[in-house]
Amino acid sequence: MGRSMSRLTAERLQELYAGTLQLVADHGYDNVTMDQVAEATRSSKATLYRQWGSKSALVVEALQCVGGTDLDLPDTGSLRGDFLAMVDRKEGQEHDADMLAAIMHAVRDDKELAEAVRGKILEPGRDRIREVVARAVERGEVAADCPGLVFVDYVFIAPIVLHHLLEGEEPSPDFLRRYIDGALLPALGLH
Amino acid sequence: MGRSMSRLTAERLQELYAGTLQLVADHGYDNVTMDQVAEATRSSKATLYRQWGSKSALVVEALQCVGGTDLDLPDTGSLRGDFLAMVDRKEGQEHDADMLAAIMHAVRDDKELAEAVRGKILEPGRDRIREVVARAVERGEVAADCPGLVFVDYVFIAPIVLHHLLEGEEPSPDFLRRYIDGALLPALGLH
Repeated sequence: MGRSMSRLTAERLQELYAGTLQLVADHGYDNVTMDQVAEATRSSKATLYRQWGSKSALVVEALQCVGGTDLDLPDTGSLRGDFLAMVDRKEGQEHDADMLAAIMHAVRDDKELAEAVRGKILEPGRDRIREVVARAVERGEVAADCPGLVFVDYVFIAPIVLHHLLEGEEPSPDFLRRYIDGALLPALGLH
Repeated sequence: MGRSMSRLTAERLQELYAGTLQLVADHGYDNVTMDQVAEATRSSKATLYRQWGSKSALVVEALQCVGGTDLDLPDTGSLRGDFLAMVDRKEGQEHDADMLAAIMHAVRDDKELAEAVRGKILEPGRDRIREVVARAVERGEVAADCPGLVFVDYVFIAPIVLHHLLEGEEPSPDFLRRYIDGALLPALGLH
């Protein structure tokens, strides 16, 4: 696909991604058509298909952009500092859970979307968590044979995905910070 | 609502609940109509409405029944034993994650469903986890001031909800058992 990204400014692209994800969060991935995306983002359907090729490619790229997996990893010198920096970046992303719920549902029926979401968003996100923890092991902060190492991504992601389901609202930055100290670090043997 | 449950045998009820949840897992809560439920479960729509009053009431009761929140709590004498007993009961519930994904998506748009799911399924489930942990605190197994106590439900639920999203399949009983030892008990200060 010979993309011509240069035609869209970074600002326009952000706007287009945000509009796409808002539609997915509101109506569910399955129910959103490229016509609706075109209308909501004031684009032409031809442009959307030329640029992204398919709805799944557009949504995955939008999620990648919003997910921030392209940001530099924090390196504060302590695992606690790195985890805090990672969740602080999540502040203001109010629709995280909406989109996640919509995507979780959609990937169950759509193998192409599922593979793209896993390969381009979930795996890179898990790699970032593992990388930060691997550095803590290198520093001797976490034991190399700590049994929690293989589960750290599950424990890290849990409050981000589950808080809305359990409490009816996004987790506050304060909740996430307390969770890091009360559950995530202890799961790695740090108290 | 004057129910006449006696008309349906326990077996027939199980079958009806299973058929309803299968539809929800396959098509999403929003997309399932009472007509479809009636057809799939070989019931009349009039019977369904007389018995449950609404789609949300039917689905919530089906989830309650399948979720097993009415089962006796295990009391093995150790927290590890109780947790193991709780996840072992999950074996064979292959569609857990499908339904959960469908329900997570649906509750975001439907306040009535959201309240029913939280009040009748999620809260009782969290209470069960907390009850098992409270007993461990009474026994002196877990410190009463352990900071992980308030987050134990998140850490417990994480692999059940997230495994399918992250790995594309339900967690195996063996994975859940290793998670209990590697992440859940350590988050409560037990190693």
